[in-house]
Amino acid sequence: MADLTPPVVILDRSQMAENIGAVARVMANFGLDRLRLVSPRDGWPQDRAWPLASGADWVLDGVQVFDSVAAATADLTTVFATTARPRETRQPVRTPRDASRVLYDDAASGLGVGLLFGSERAGLETSDIALCQGIVTIPIDPRHQSLNLAQAVAINAYEWRTLVLDAPPPNFREGEPPASGALAVGMYEHLERELDAAGFFHPPEKFRSMSQNLRVMLGRAAFTEQEVATFRGVIHALSKGRGRVLERLAKERAPPSATTDSDVDAG
Amino acid sequence: MADLTPPVVILDRSQMAENIGAVARVMANFGLDRLRLVSPRDGWPQDRAWPLASGADWVLDGVQVFDSVAAATADLTTVFATTARPRETRQPVRTPRDASRVLYDDAASGLGVGLLFGSERAGLETSDIALCQGIVTIPIDPRHQSLNLAQAVAINAYEWRTLVLDAPPPNFREGEPPASGALAVGMYEHLERELDAAGFFHPPEKFRSMSQNLRVMLGRAAFTEQEVATFRGVIHALSKGRGRVLERLAKERAPPSATTDSDVDAG
Repeated sequence: MADLTPPVVILDRSQMAENIGAVARVMANFGLDRLRLVSPRDGWPQDRAWPLASGADWVLDGVQVFDSVAAATADLTTVFATTARPRETRQPVRTPRDASRVLYDDAASGLGVGLLFGSERAGLETSDIALCQGIVTIPIDPRHQSLNLAQAVAINAYEWRTLVLDAPPPNFREGEPPASGALAVGMYEHLERELDAAGFFHPPEKFRSMSQNLRVMLGRAAFTEQEVATFRGVIHALSKGRGRVLERLAKERAPPSATTDSDVDAG
Repeated sequence: MADLTPPVVILDRSQMAENIGAVARVMANFGLDRLRLVSPRDGWPQDRAWPLASGADWVLDGVQVFDSVAAATADLTTVFATTARPRETRQPVRTPRDASRVLYDDAASGLGVGLLFGSERAGLETSDIALCQGIVTIPIDPRHQSLNLAQAVAINAYEWRTLVLDAPPPNFREGEPPASGALAVGMYEHLERELDAAGFFHPPEKFRSMSQNLRVMLGRAAFTEQEVATFRGVIHALSKGRGRVLERLAKERAPPSATTDSDVDAG
């Protein structure tokens, strides 16, 4: 990954400077930084692009301008033309995922790679597509094919980065591990003891299946050691807390001899 | 694929109507059409959204507005919170690709699925993430994390559509599906109410973080509807059961006038 040079992004005859800025932004999101413009409609640079880059100024500052796709791709070995409308062509048509794989392999071999995008309205000329080593088609719903230029760049850049990272995402097992079986069982037994005292398991012969159900339910949550402590606090609070309230009520309303602390704590 | 209902897209407190339009556009690109807004800053509808949808009017015309994430996800079973900044959490963190696979399997099992996106500036509240069944993190370059909202939707919608077109055999959920968001929230609120009555949340300013931790812990277990009922029975038994025991004790030991049923049931 260290000496892997990401694809160049080439925008052919882009119309809106804002779109160029948005493209720069999303390139930076996914670790791409070389942007080339072929005959941008309004010339270059355009101040309107920078705000849309949302801070990815280094991409815009490094833009190179060319007057043809051929010139913009001259130093590259593998360039894919991105179009939502595959034409009559004998060129291979790839998904963004498959294309990223080819670009990745070629870049890893030290070759210059790139992705070519057409203008917002007109797309790419067939003659320019012919300069490319293949076509990338994003799997757009045919009922709504109008894909924003920056979105098209985003999908391809995302696939590139996903492939380059090729590392599983952090998932919660990487943090605190689940508590040991002993701690979990201690928690279950605490819960069952208090539920039993509260008359939850009736008829009594249901205890086995009911407690198993509870263990399975809670077991799926895979509590950490800290979470086991928290949940035991919950059990304690629910089972004793109300008792404390009642105890106070009883003390206030009943003669002192009617209840004692040991009665209240029993069970 | 015929009766596979794509994920609902939920935008929490979105600020710019233009972004809502851009989201609708890219949803349509990838075959999604159900868009929900939670407390959009400028209200809804906003005329400025339609031009940005670039013809995907049916998505905007069908928008539903809610006043909380809980309400917007009440009928859904599996909702992933999309955030570029994974927090300290015990919830599973997935890539868009892995998340799509889970959503696909659950949708194929007939469950309601969704993707939750935070506001442009503030992202998502931890308390709203806690209502979700996991986190989706797009593999952004840490040097430029500012990802446009519509781009974030695009990446996830693209992964969904890529998977749907691939049409892998779904892994149907075996057994009962998880309960809906509404049932889960009802259970959380029941637990919190009883814990509050028992003096569990102290100091009171800890209520927020403590209840969030409990929601995340229990959320991971993905209780079925039946299990929600069982757990509510547990809460009820623990909080009232001890009261019943005390009530009986009090009746046996105190003069009849000392306590009344209404005293005992209070709180």
